[in-house]
Formats: sequence, structure tokens, C-alpha cells
Amino acid sequence: MHIDILTLFPEMVSGVFDASILKKAHEKEKYSYNLVNFRDYSTNKHMKVDDYPYGGGAGMVLTPQPVFDATEAVIKQRHTKPRIILMSPQGAPYNQQKAEELAKEDHLIFICGHYEGYDERIRKHLVTDEISIGDYVLTGGELGAMVVIDSVVRLLPDVLGNTESAPEDSFSTGLLEHPHYTRPADFRGMKVPDVLLSGNHAKIAEWRRKQSLKRTFERRKDLIDDAALTDKEKKQLDEK
Amino acid sequence: MHIDILTLFPEMVSGVFDASILKKAHEKEKYSYNLVNFRDYSTNKHMKVDDYPYGGGAGMVLTPQPVFDATEAVIKQRHTKPRIILMSPQGAPYNQQKAEELAKEDHLIFICGHYEGYDERIRKHLVTDEISIGDYVLTGGELGAMVVIDSVVRLLPDVLGNTESAPEDSFSTGLLEHPHYTRPADFRGMKVPDVLLSGNHAKIAEWRRKQSLKRTFERRKDLIDDAALTDKEKKQLDEK
Repeated sequence: MHIDILTLFPEMVSGVFDASILKKAHEKEKYSYNLVNFRDYSTNKHMKVDDYPYGGGAGMVLTPQPVFDATEAVIKQRHTKPRIILMSPQGAPYNQQKAEELAKEDHLIFICGHYEGYDERIRKHLVTDEISIGDYVLTGGELGAMVVIDSVVRLLPDVLGNTESAPEDSFSTGLLEHPHYTRPADFRGMKVPDVLLSGNHAKIAEWRRKQSLKRTFERRKDLIDDAALTDKEKKQLDEK
Repeated sequence: MHIDILTLFPEMVSGVFDASILKKAHEKEKYSYNLVNFRDYSTNKHMKVDDYPYGGGAGMVLTPQPVFDATEAVIKQRHTKPRIILMSPQGAPYNQQKAEELAKEDHLIFICGHYEGYDERIRKHLVTDEISIGDYVLTGGELGAMVVIDSVVRLLPDVLGNTESAPEDSFSTGLLEHPHYTRPADFRGMKVPDVLLSGNHAKIAEWRRKQSLKRTFERRKDLIDDAALTDKEKKQLDEK
């Protein structure tokens, strides 16, 4: 997989690529990436990339020219049919299904605006996907792009080792995870539940499943419908 | 406001603080921050911070000791009653209301796990908030913490200038934004709608409101109920 990130703030994201899984996966050549400052593509003599909105109003709007030209330049370099992703609070809410879908692609291009709005022609005639990572306002698309990239790269084949993958299966089972405990068994008087120290694997599995259901019910009832529950579990939840 | 970030990967987030609004707001002393590698607080002779889960299973779990000790150390330095925030896919879904709430605090502490699960005693006995930025799995809490911090710092008094604030009001009006257009009026045959060039401000305002409603209806019907619609607008939407 190759990833291009079009941004006016490449220094904001470069540190994220230099750490942890993104760094390791890059060193193992599981993906490649390129940071493109689309200001370099501006044909304006002052290298401007934004301008006042037609029809008035506060704030600036990204002009189409540098974004179109930069996107077309990175496509030309690779002869691919990439997904062209606009990070925007108006996009489709991002989720794990979308991460799995994007992990199958060969080439992703992320367009990150900053402060400004996007000229509507970028939306209508250039991008293939608009993604929002959540219902909150950020100063730019960069952090959102890095969130998407982190969630996608960890799904690429052979990227995660055993120690890195296991406990994070919230959303893949459709339920929130059960509690985890590790050493010491007694920390300042706070104790690990007896069942986890019992060595009885059937009882431990049962306890974990119950805790997972309980936690999902208490915190994220909205997820419960989608989970594959047994009839007995459905009855237990109805009784609450 | 002071922000402490407890992380095993400080290099992952330092670049984000060195750019854009977070940098400017820091230079203007609108907030201060400190990156704390909680591995430094481990009393284990190999500076270990995680261990195998009680009850078996794959993956590692963060032990309580370094996280408790690091958190207590940063609280002691300031004599505050901070919000202690655990970044976790099991947390409450983050949104703009939560950003506004956190922006009123004096001291935020973010605990960022990485790969590992958290020992449940951290959850139960140390943190005040568990936050999830969305229903997707990331390799660590660092990007989530930066998302929350970016969304909070931009709300602090005198942080945003006029050019930076305006077009991003999705969620604050309860509707998605209307389309923006800027120069040129004709870009490769793609034209700006006539109404925006008309100079008729009443017509422009009407067009924008309609577009905003239409876009929200098409993309995020779930937001519509919460928006303050006029009776006429409600009728228009019912007719669709």
C-alpha cells in the first residue's frame, strides 16, 4: 500500500510516522508514504492556497487549483486508481468496517484542509470518499488522517505481532472488551478477582463473556443489537 | 490550562504540539503541557510497565504501579483537582459538547496505553473519565489524546483568530455546513453557482441555509432532530 498525504503542515504528521507500529511497518516495507505540501503546487505568484468565500462570510476557503494539481501529480507518479479521501466533519462517520475496507486498497490519498473550508468543486469532482472521525471540530484534517492511517496500517498483513494485537478486539466482536488484570494480585489493597486466579479456564471464559456483555450494556447499549448473543444471554440482558 | 500526557511514545505527539494552533496557543501562553513517559516511574528493575494477563489470554496488560505513581506525581506538582482521562475504545464517545466541557477545566491528565490493555484497577480507582474518539481500533491512545487536545485548545479564550474559526461550525449549529466556493468563478469549466455571485445577501443566506439542511438530511439524518428548524423547514423536509 502507498499513502499520500496532502497537507499544509507536513511537520505535524511526520513524528507520528516515526514511532511505534507505523515506523515498524514502514521499516518492514509493509507500506510506503509521502507527505505532499500542496502549497508547492499553487500557480499563484504568492503561493496562496485560499481565498475569500463567494457570497461573503468570515473565514477562508481552499481554492481548487493547488489541490487538484497536487492530487493529479501523485496519481500520475503511480498509475493507480486510488481512493481520494477528504477529511471533513461533514464526511461519513469513520468506523472499523471502513478501516477494513480501506486496508484492501493499493493507494490512498488524503487531502487535509486546515482552518479553511474546501471549495465545493474539490468535493464534487475530485474526491472519492469524505470521512469524519467523529462529531467534534478539529483545526485541520491532519490528525484525522493519521487516525485513519494508524487504524488501516495495523490491519495490513504481518504488521501486528502477537503481543500487539490481542487485547484490542472491541468492535471486532461487536462487544466491548472484558476487564484485564495483571500483577500484582494485590496492589495497595485493590485485588484481582478470585476467579482469574483460580486456574479454572471454563469459569474464567464465562466470567469474561459476562463482564463483556455487562460493560457493553452499561456503556454502549447501541452496540448490543449487532452482537451475536446466545438466547440465554439475551434473556439475561432482558432481565436487567 | 495545563495538560499532562502520560505515554510510552512521547516522540509520537511532540511534533503535533510543534505546529499550527497548538504551537501558536502555546507561544501565547494560553496553555502549557508536559509529556511524561510513565516508564520512568516503574519500580521494576527492568523498567517493565506491562505483564501477562491473569486468567490467560494473548496480549499484555499495563500494570497499575507506574501509571498510578506517574499520575500522582503530576498531581502533586500542581495541587489541582484534575480530570484524569483514559483514552480507550470502551470510553464514552467523544463529541463537541464534551470538548466544550473540558475546555473549562484547569488541568487535564491523559493516560495513553499502547497495544496493551489497561489493568482494571487503573479504570476503577484512578481515572475520572474514559473517552473514545470513535468506533475504530488504534494502536495506542496517543492520537486520540491529541485529537481531544486539539479540539479543546482551539476553544480556549483568544486562541482562534477570525480567519481560523469561521467555516468550521458543523456541530455547533446542529447542522452540517453549506458548500463554500472561492476564486476562480470558473475552474476548468466547473462553475460557482450564480446566486453566490449575485450580491443579493438575502438570497445567498436562504440558499446557504437550504443547502445546509439538504446536506445534513442526505448525509447525517441522525443530526436533524437536534437542530433548531423553523416550521417551514420541517415541512420542507417532510415532503422529501
